[in-house]
Amino acid sequence: MRISELSRASGVSIATIKYYLREGLLPPGETTARNQADYSDEHLWRLRFVRVLREVGGLGIESIRAVLVAVNDDQRSLHEVLGVAHHALSPASPSGEEFPEMDEVDTLLRRLGWKVSPAAPDRWALAETLAALRRLGRDVDATTFLPHAQAVEQLAAVEVSSLDPSAGRAQAVEQAIVGTVVYEAALVALRRLAHEHHSALQASNSQRTADR
Amino acid sequence: MRISELSRASGVSIATIKYYLREGLLPPGETTARNQADYSDEHLWRLRFVRVLREVGGLGIESIRAVLVAVNDDQRSLHEVLGVAHHALSPASPSGEEFPEMDEVDTLLRRLGWKVSPAAPDRWALAETLAALRRLGRDVDATTFLPHAQAVEQLAAVEVSSLDPSAGRAQAVEQAIVGTVVYEAALVALRRLAHEHHSALQASNSQRTADR
Repeated sequence: MRISELSRASGVSIATIKYYLREGLLPPGETTARNQADYSDEHLWRLRFVRVLREVGGLGIESIRAVLVAVNDDQRSLHEVLGVAHHALSPASPSGEEFPEMDEVDTLLRRLGWKVSPAAPDRWALAETLAALRRLGRDVDATTFLPHAQAVEQLAAVEVSSLDPSAGRAQAVEQAIVGTVVYEAALVALRRLAHEHHSALQASNSQRTADR
Repeated sequence: MRISELSRASGVSIATIKYYLREGLLPPGETTARNQADYSDEHLWRLRFVRVLREVGGLGIESIRAVLVAVNDDQRSLHEVLGVAHHALSPASPSGEEFPEMDEVDTLLRRLGWKVSPAAPDRWALAETLAALRRLGRDVDATTFLPHAQAVEQLAAVEVSSLDPSAGRAQAVEQAIVGTVVYEAALVALRRLAHEHHSALQASNSQRTADR
């Protein structure tokens, strides 16, 4: 298909497609004539993937490039590629610094029976949240996250088992990454909606008490 | 206390404190002598709050300002202020555009019995995730998010009820926002760790099958 058809089918503007081509996020089409190139379904599919990473995952160009390089690297296992994607998606790269809360997070992970890489950026991220709660004067330890851990474990088990094992490697990787990005965005949105609902409930309950 | 003590106690550098003062994120201290000002516990507490919004919530200066303005506005209910905070925390502002998935999201919310504002940015965000899944060729409807909704509803109920109702208004608002920011970051980190664990489990299971 021509670039105009690729644009229509993907919902990505021609200017943006040209930008992705320049940046190497999209491989060049097959040249069919001077100033004309032909694009395949592979291009369409790749473009949709980049769009999800950008719009739903909020990733910048550099992070998208890192994910694509990992997806294309056959030497890496699905498991490793997911690690790269999680790293790219993490709001801040971990400093690598060890702080007291790390030990408590590791104790929590052992208690849950979760096997995770010591280099997982989310180990740091979780320790950071615990440290933040304490800096704000809350008297908490890592077990405060236990209900959250149990809730997400069930969801993760369902999500991982829904991946199609017969899919090709590239597709399996992308399935997993898209699932991570999209279901994570959905989970965060739902959590805020649930909060709005419960804070409204609580406000109307205390109003009713005050009216008596 | 002097600015150097405020810096030590908060873990925020003097240069950054001066930047926040210039930007109006921190009210000026009381002038005690030429070029010297005295800062109170209120300053220390505010500084810690800004630090959490920045480091854990990943908010930029403009978004932090919007949250602080809402917190200081006595005309706004706790519930409204939380809405402002959720809006500031949303990765992208909703376009205001209505698209087909919005109706499905509303049906899901009714089914759950959640009362949320039609203007809640997360209504759009959730519809966006559903649209993204479909663009990627997944045959899904809004009920795919039902297990996620039920999981976060339990967590939100626990989190909202743990807020101290006897706290002053400013403190209640900040408790709620900090809870939103920090527990959300923790939930996302835990979800990724759970995914890592389950994808490792699945990889070792299929390896074992292949070895037979």
